Amino acid sequence: MKTIKLNLQNRSYNIVIGKGILKTRLGKFLQNLNLGNAAFIITNNTIKTKYEKILSGALRLSHIGFKLITVPDSEKSKSLETACGLIKNLADYDKKRKVFVIAFGGGVIGDLAGFVASIYKRGIPYAQIGTTVLAQVDSSIGGKTGVDLKQGKNLAGAFYQPKLVFSDVAFLESLDLRQIRSGLAEVIKYGIIKDPGLFDYLEKESHDCETSWIKKLDFEFLVSRCGAIKAKIVSLDEKEEKGYRTILNFGHTIGHAIEAAGNYKKYNHGEAIALGMLVACDISEMLGLTHKNTCLRIENVIASTGLPTKIKKISPRDIIKSHYLDKKFIGSRNRFVLLEKIGKVKVVEDIPLEIIKSALAKKTLPL
Amino acid sequence: MKTIKLNLQNRSYNIVIGKGILKTRLGKFLQNLNLGNAAFIITNNTIKTKYEKILSGALRLSHIGFKLITVPDSEKSKSLETACGLIKNLADYDKKRKVFVIAFGGGVIGDLAGFVASIYKRGIPYAQIGTTVLAQVDSSIGGKTGVDLKQGKNLAGAFYQPKLVFSDVAFLESLDLRQIRSGLAEVIKYGIIKDPGLFDYLEKESHDCETSWIKKLDFEFLVSRCGAIKAKIVSLDEKEEKGYRTILNFGHTIGHAIEAAGNYKKYNHGEAIALGMLVACDISEMLGLTHKNTCLRIENVIASTGLPTKIKKISPRDIIKSHYLDKKFIGSRNRFVLLEKIGKVKVVEDIPLEIIKSALAKKTLPL
Repeated sequence: MKTIKLNLQNRSYNIVIGKGILKTRLGKFLQNLNLGNAAFIITNNTIKTKYEKILSGALRLSHIGFKLITVPDSEKSKSLETACGLIKNLADYDKKRKVFVIAFGGGVIGDLAGFVASIYKRGIPYAQIGTTVLAQVDSSIGGKTGVDLKQGKNLAGAFYQPKLVFSDVAFLESLDLRQIRSGLAEVIKYGIIKDPGLFDYLEKESHDCETSWIKKLDFEFLVSRCGAIKAKIVSLDEKEEKGYRTILNFGHTIGHAIEAAGNYKKYNHGEAIALGMLVACDISEMLGLTHKNTCLRIENVIASTGLPTKIKKISPRDIIKSHYLDKKFIGSRNRFVLLEKIGKVKVVEDIPLEIIKSALAKKTLPL
Repeated sequence: MKTIKLNLQNRSYNIVIGKGILKTRLGKFLQNLNLGNAAFIITNNTIKTKYEKILSGALRLSHIGFKLITVPDSEKSKSLETACGLIKNLADYDKKRKVFVIAFGGGVIGDLAGFVASIYKRGIPYAQIGTTVLAQVDSSIGGKTGVDLKQGKNLAGAFYQPKLVFSDVAFLESLDLRQIRSGLAEVIKYGIIKDPGLFDYLEKESHDCETSWIKKLDFEFLVSRCGAIKAKIVSLDEKEEKGYRTILNFGHTIGHAIEAAGNYKKYNHGEAIALGMLVACDISEMLGLTHKNTCLRIENVIASTGLPTKIKKISPRDIIKSHYLDKKFIGSRNRFVLLEKIGKVKVVEDIPLEIIKSALAKKTLPL
C-alpha cells in the first residue's frame, strides 16, 4: 500500500493506493478521518452488484451507517437534474446524522458525487473511491467536480477537494479492455507531460500485435506515479489559475471537441483524449516545437494499447464547431498545451485556426 | 461615498456605499475591475421596472453588454429548479463572451445569483447590487450563497465571494415600511453583537408612538457600520469554521425555525429574526448570562420599529419541530448565540430543550 499526500493547507488529503484494501483498510481510514457517522454512497448498478457487500462490511465494522443510491452508468448521469435529485435525497437522509458522501465508481460518479457534496449545506466531506483506471489515475484526484450542460461538458461545477482518495487496484481486474484503454490514455498523458520514465515503461511493455498486454501492467505502479504527478500539480495550482494545472489538459481541448462532435457516442473520453493528444502532437510539430520522431513514439504507444489513432466519421469542420463551445476558450482566444519532448509540454495561446484545421485533417480518415 | 475593504487574500473586494452612485459610479467600478464584457443580470420585475434604465445606461457607458433575467419576487425563487434554469440561460448567453453575473435585488436575488455564479464554469465573477436594507447591511456581503430545499433553508449553496458589493442607499427610499423594518432587524443584530454605538443610535432615534421614524434614519451610516462589522468578521472566518462568523447568527437559529414553522408566510425574514433575537435574549437571561434590563432595551427598540415582539399563531412545539431541521444543528447537538451585554455575545452549545421551550413559550401569544 502506498500513500501520497496532496498538500493544500487545511484542505490537504491522502491518496491511498493498494490491492484488496477496500475490505482490509477502508474502515480504518474513514474512522480516523471522522468524516461522519452516516455515508451517502453514490454509485451505479454494476459496482453495486460487484462490491456492495465488501463496502457495507467495511462501513459496518467502523460503525458508519449508510444509504446507497445508484445512478445510470452513463455520461448522461452527469446532469443538473441528477445532481438536484441526489441533493434532495441526501437532505432526506441527513436528519440528525453527521452525513458525508462516498463517490463509488468511475469518473462520472466521482464528478457528480463531488459536486453534490460541494453544494449540500455549502459543502460536506466526501471520499473518492474510484473503480476505473481513469478515476484512479486522474479524475478522483484534485477536486474538479461538475456536471454537463447541453452547451458543453463540465459547465456547471465546483472546485471542491475530497477528504480521501482511496484506490483499490483490485477493482481494475474485472474491467473490460475498452475501459482499461480509456484510462491508459490519461496514463500516457502523464508520461508525456511530466514523467519520461512512466512513458518508457509503457513503451517497453507494449506489443504491436495484440493488446492484452495492457491487462498485465503493474497498476499499483501506474496509479501511484500518476497520482503523485497530479497531487503535485494540484497543490501548486488548485483552481487552474496559475498555469501549472493547465498542462493536465494536454490533448483535452481537441479531445473534448471530438467527444462532443461525436455526441459522446462515437468515442469515449479516453479514446477522444488519445486522438486529441495526437492532434496536439501534430500542431506542435507544425509549429516546430517538437520532433517528428517524438510524435511517432507517442502514436506507437497509443496504437499498441488499441486506442484509436485516426478520427473516423467526424469531419474536422464539426470538431472545430464544437471546439468553440469548449470552456477552455476564453472569449475568442484559444489555448493549447503543446509538446516539446516526452516529459515537457508548454501552454501556447492563439494558435492560428488554419494550423488546427490542418492537424485535424491529417488525423481524420475520409468520411 | 464610502469604501470598505473586505480582506480575504486573493478574494478580497470592496464594499461601496453611497447615495445615487448607481448612475454616477457603477460603470467606472466595473470597468476598473474588468470582470468581463457581458453582464448576466438577475433581478425581479419590480426592480427591473424601476431601475433597468439607470443600470443599462451605466453598463453601456462602460461598453459592457448585458442580458437581464427576472425571477419572481419571492423566497420561492430560491430553488434548485430556478438556479438550474438560470445556469442554462447563462450558458446560452455565454458564447464567445467573457461573462459575469450581477445580482440586482434583495436577499433572495443575491443568494440565488451568487449561487449561479459559483457553479457556472466552476465559478465566474459576480457583483452584488443590493436594493433592500437587508441585502445592503447583510446578505450581499460575505459570499454565503444558496437556495432552499423543502427540508430547510439554504441547504444547497456555496461559499463564494463577489468581486464587488455596491450599495446605493437611494434604492431604500422607495421601499415600504415592512421591507425597511425587515432589514432593520439585522441592523439591530449588528448593534447587539458588536456595536453598542450603533445600538445607541437606534435607541436614540426611535419613537414609541409611530414607526415612520425608521424612514428618516441615516442609511448611509447604518449600511457602512454594518458592512464594516460583517467585513471584519468574514475576513476572520470566511467559512464559519473558526467560531467568529457564528455570532452573525444571533437570533437566526430560532428565527429560521419560526420562519419555517410559519411556512415562510406568517413572518418575513426580518420579523422572524427579531422574534428569534428576543427568544435568544430570554434564554440568555434564564442562563444568567445577561441582565433583564438589557433584554428590555432590545425589546423596546424592536417594538419601536414595528417589528413583532410576540409569536402569534405558531406553537412552540411546531417551532421546535422545524428547529431540528435547521442546518445549524450538528448531529443531535444544538448551538446558540447568546447575549452577555449590548455589543457582546457568545456561542453556547447544548442548551437544554426545556429552557428553549420555556423561552419560546414566554414569547408566544396563546393560540
